[in-house]
Amino acid sequence: MALGIGDDGALVNPSTNTQLVVATDTLVESVHFPAYASAEQIATRALCVNLSDMAAMGATPRWFTLALTLEKADTDWLEGFSRGLAEVANEFGIALIGGDTTSGPLTISLTLLGEVPVDAALQRNGASPGDSIYVTGTLGDGAAGLKVIEQAGGENLVLDSRTERLLTRFYRPQPQVQVGQQLRDLASACIDISDGLVADLGHICKASAVSANLVSKQLPIHPEVTQSYPQQALHWALAGGDDYQLCFTVPKANFETLDRLIAKGELDATMIGQIQPLREENCQLLVDNIAADINGGFDHFGQ
Amino acid sequence: MALGIGDDGALVNPSTNTQLVVATDTLVESVHFPAYASAEQIATRALCVNLSDMAAMGATPRWFTLALTLEKADTDWLEGFSRGLAEVANEFGIALIGGDTTSGPLTISLTLLGEVPVDAALQRNGASPGDSIYVTGTLGDGAAGLKVIEQAGGENLVLDSRTERLLTRFYRPQPQVQVGQQLRDLASACIDISDGLVADLGHICKASAVSANLVSKQLPIHPEVTQSYPQQALHWALAGGDDYQLCFTVPKANFETLDRLIAKGELDATMIGQIQPLREENCQLLVDNIAADINGGFDHFGQ
Repeated sequence: MALGIGDDGALVNPSTNTQLVVATDTLVESVHFPAYASAEQIATRALCVNLSDMAAMGATPRWFTLALTLEKADTDWLEGFSRGLAEVANEFGIALIGGDTTSGPLTISLTLLGEVPVDAALQRNGASPGDSIYVTGTLGDGAAGLKVIEQAGGENLVLDSRTERLLTRFYRPQPQVQVGQQLRDLASACIDISDGLVADLGHICKASAVSANLVSKQLPIHPEVTQSYPQQALHWALAGGDDYQLCFTVPKANFETLDRLIAKGELDATMIGQIQPLREENCQLLVDNIAADINGGFDHFGQ
Repeated sequence: MALGIGDDGALVNPSTNTQLVVATDTLVESVHFPAYASAEQIATRALCVNLSDMAAMGATPRWFTLALTLEKADTDWLEGFSRGLAEVANEFGIALIGGDTTSGPLTISLTLLGEVPVDAALQRNGASPGDSIYVTGTLGDGAAGLKVIEQAGGENLVLDSRTERLLTRFYRPQPQVQVGQQLRDLASACIDISDGLVADLGHICKASAVSANLVSKQLPIHPEVTQSYPQQALHWALAGGDDYQLCFTVPKANFETLDRLIAKGELDATMIGQIQPLREENCQLLVDNIAADINGGFDHFGQ
């Protein structure tokens, strides 16, 4: 970085032969996190959610700005917030280059800047019939984490390993930045799962003008989620949101490379379905060959 | 732009041999604009304020992202807001490349990206004793505009040419983007006046480790402001804020070039004082050789 916080703007040096990726995300109290979330939890969640957009583009995150609106300057709160921000920023090697602090209802807006080699960015519009659909990690953990938080309702949770893991998945999602970069030469389309698998895969289908069929029994769900929430687990995996895993499509030519990476443990991903042609000129999203609502987030997709 | 709104992030192509300038500004209802401001007024003010940071760095603004938080999606309001945003974006040739709309108390956060040739950015830390201090346009209009708005208190104003001009100066400041670019090779330091001349020149003094003396009778104040507000005009010019003019310093070697530009009408700027050495190792800001509070914004600088 050439010049950081303290001038009218920050001055940074883009790398040669790269394109710039820019993503903005805003988190509002009581909308995107409960009012009783700690400052550190809010900070880690805000930055991880935004890093997940960089992952979905195959970008290397570099810099970010913070617009922080808060009711009053509370030293303890700000220390916790800074600690959370710094922890994630250090892990991903990104620098806070500027920002603006204003007085008002608690709102955090981050803009991340990343870089990709020219023409290498992963986009939503490259999926073709015959491509396989993959997802990283496990699905439904974000929704299960939110359930745990809502059930506790602000009371201190007695954390066993299960609740701790789920809480962490909500407040500290794991942006798949390295996987995104691995996929630059392998995937035909990619998106991160923020609204739920069906809704986000729906975005790929619409941008690529294709349909898709998911095989429900192949969806990777953590056994603790299946055991604790047997009624909800599949619904959350399909439509729960907040997972911040990557959903991506892979053309036939790259099946072998991909399967080898997975078999060697160098990529944590699962094949969950196939891209199909448009049906009667419409994008359709099927689950086990039964039509689902392609716009279906948590609220729209019937349980 | 390579790829706009609709993917996980925007993808843009930085120019070769440039550095990237990044600036973020947040506007909160009732803090940065009155609750009765129109959507169009809020949009133009938000974007102009942010463009002013680009001007102060000598940057060419290129792209921006918008994080918009609002209570409810009101079509009329959004149309007005979009119209205001588009009008300013078109005038300055910048593209909205992404954003995030969330539900909550009205807050607008913009991040602007601009470009400057490598090592050409105007900064705050280059002023030296002997440099002359200049300011663009007229001072005190922002504070006078706010006064007019507050006096009307949300009632429709009967607009004569004077109130209309002042209202416009508040809701539609004129970011000095072209002047900033003109000054790249001429100014030793530059800042935009958002907090008031004394406070913002104070930032230059602190960053450059110098003192400054302003000559009050040289301050450019619009005659209508002097006539309508004879008691407040000088105070507003020194400490009123919201002017979004540029304050810059010029080394002796460039005096002649600068004076020629001004004389030919190619630059609207006025010489208002001199940079001086530190006094007893302290930055001091003098007005007519009398010490002023270097941190003095509107609230701190005695009338």
